[in-house]
Amino acid sequence: MTYCVGIRLNAGLVFLSDSRTNAGLDQISTFRKMIVYEKPGDRFMVLLSAGNLSISQSVREILQVEQLPDGDREPLTIWNATSMFDAARVLGSAVRRVYENDAPSLKNHGMDFVASFIFGGQIGNETMRLFLVYSAGNFIEATRETCFFQIGESKYGKPILDRVLHPDTPLDEAAKCALVSMDSTLKSNLSVGLPLDLVVYEEGRLQTDRIVCIDDQNPYFRMVRSSWGQRLREVFESMEDPHWDPSTAGGQNALIVDQPRYDALKKIRNPDEKVV
Amino acid sequence: MTYCVGIRLNAGLVFLSDSRTNAGLDQISTFRKMIVYEKPGDRFMVLLSAGNLSISQSVREILQVEQLPDGDREPLTIWNATSMFDAARVLGSAVRRVYENDAPSLKNHGMDFVASFIFGGQIGNETMRLFLVYSAGNFIEATRETCFFQIGESKYGKPILDRVLHPDTPLDEAAKCALVSMDSTLKSNLSVGLPLDLVVYEEGRLQTDRIVCIDDQNPYFRMVRSSWGQRLREVFESMEDPHWDPSTAGGQNALIVDQPRYDALKKIRNPDEKVV
Repeated sequence: MTYCVGIRLNAGLVFLSDSRTNAGLDQISTFRKMIVYEKPGDRFMVLLSAGNLSISQSVREILQVEQLPDGDREPLTIWNATSMFDAARVLGSAVRRVYENDAPSLKNHGMDFVASFIFGGQIGNETMRLFLVYSAGNFIEATRETCFFQIGESKYGKPILDRVLHPDTPLDEAAKCALVSMDSTLKSNLSVGLPLDLVVYEEGRLQTDRIVCIDDQNPYFRMVRSSWGQRLREVFESMEDPHWDPSTAGGQNALIVDQPRYDALKKIRNPDEKVV
Repeated sequence: MTYCVGIRLNAGLVFLSDSRTNAGLDQISTFRKMIVYEKPGDRFMVLLSAGNLSISQSVREILQVEQLPDGDREPLTIWNATSMFDAARVLGSAVRRVYENDAPSLKNHGMDFVASFIFGGQIGNETMRLFLVYSAGNFIEATRETCFFQIGESKYGKPILDRVLHPDTPLDEAAKCALVSMDSTLKSNLSVGLPLDLVVYEEGRLQTDRIVCIDDQNPYFRMVRSSWGQRLREVFESMEDPHWDPSTAGGQNALIVDQPRYDALKKIRNPDEKVV
């Protein structure tokens, strides 16, 4: 499958993707899920994709040439759009074009048209924006309250993002958080795999050189993986185990205080009772 | 939805369940997903259920009286089975009986027959056993290599179980681990909710008094929730942020060492190039 995360902070944007694709368990391949569209000094955009690989590759292919009618003006493209909202509309249009081409044939083979995209960046003087684009080509935008989107196998890595991220999180700390989130996902799910692609974009720069492909030899990611796992266990061990006997519980961290022990949940059978 | 976890250790068994049930987002109720079958000194069994509530309630109702033909002998029930394997077969039979009763009508309304169960315990001198029972009434058993099962919203809470649990984990530490796993799930998913039911069973006792219902006032779970979240953030902050410039990286934890920065991922457009 796939795990991708996109984060919008006051300081900039962070994008992270894995690169495992599988059709069943016996056909596992490496495909990058990230693509960066950059016109230095003018616009910087990143696209992450999940779902059916043939759909997302087609969308990526089309996106660079997709045009959206714009009244009397020149047709809209991702390269001339003056807002990220318009660029996301162009992406939505590309998704719908692929749908028209492929969905009927997929349906003949019992397959749904499944794809989702994280698309974010900055154009000119506009603020940075981050969108989640669905199979239907519609989309939602990240806000201060919900500053990240995930696609693919998102659940394993969500708790750490929920606990750590807020709009004021510094860029490199958010990158670290995304990597920890990815590590939890890698550890629990075979369908997500290395190498990873990471992009960090600083607000207002309209280009970036903070792009890195992370494989299992990457020193920083190795450090994150080993020290996160180890310290997590240390923290876990440092927390008190539950006390069952209220009289010896030492008070405030008791599991049972004066609660009933829940006989309501028990079906107790008298050993002498006959089975009916 | 639901989140339940069952763990089989050398020292005993741990079962934890939430109690939120929802039909859509506007119909949320509290239903317990755990039931304990106990004949002190003879057998101790725990059933956790997830999926369609009408199915799991029917299965629980039927399970106490379900009989499985056993040749010339008295029919098998959960109260006379001499092995947990046979008891799990009785449970599978109860699931199939509910399927026969309800699946056709559910199908008329476009609903699948969805239910899953964790069923574990100990009978007489047999070793403790833990099963995962599917909608079809078939089941698998936990082993030394895979010592826990989850049902319902299992992904958020899986990483900590993967990192901590092994067959030698002490019982109370495993209970703590299950509670941390539940906390991550509660934090990231609205469809899982308090109160929780927790059972800890010590090998060979054939009964337990370690049963507790945990609500938001429980001192131990409050401690787990607040200190786990806080210490997780502390550990997170104590890890180094990524270094981007290899020359100042101070060596071994650099994110970029001598790697190419992946121009292959970039679609760069020359600002003067005309959009075709």
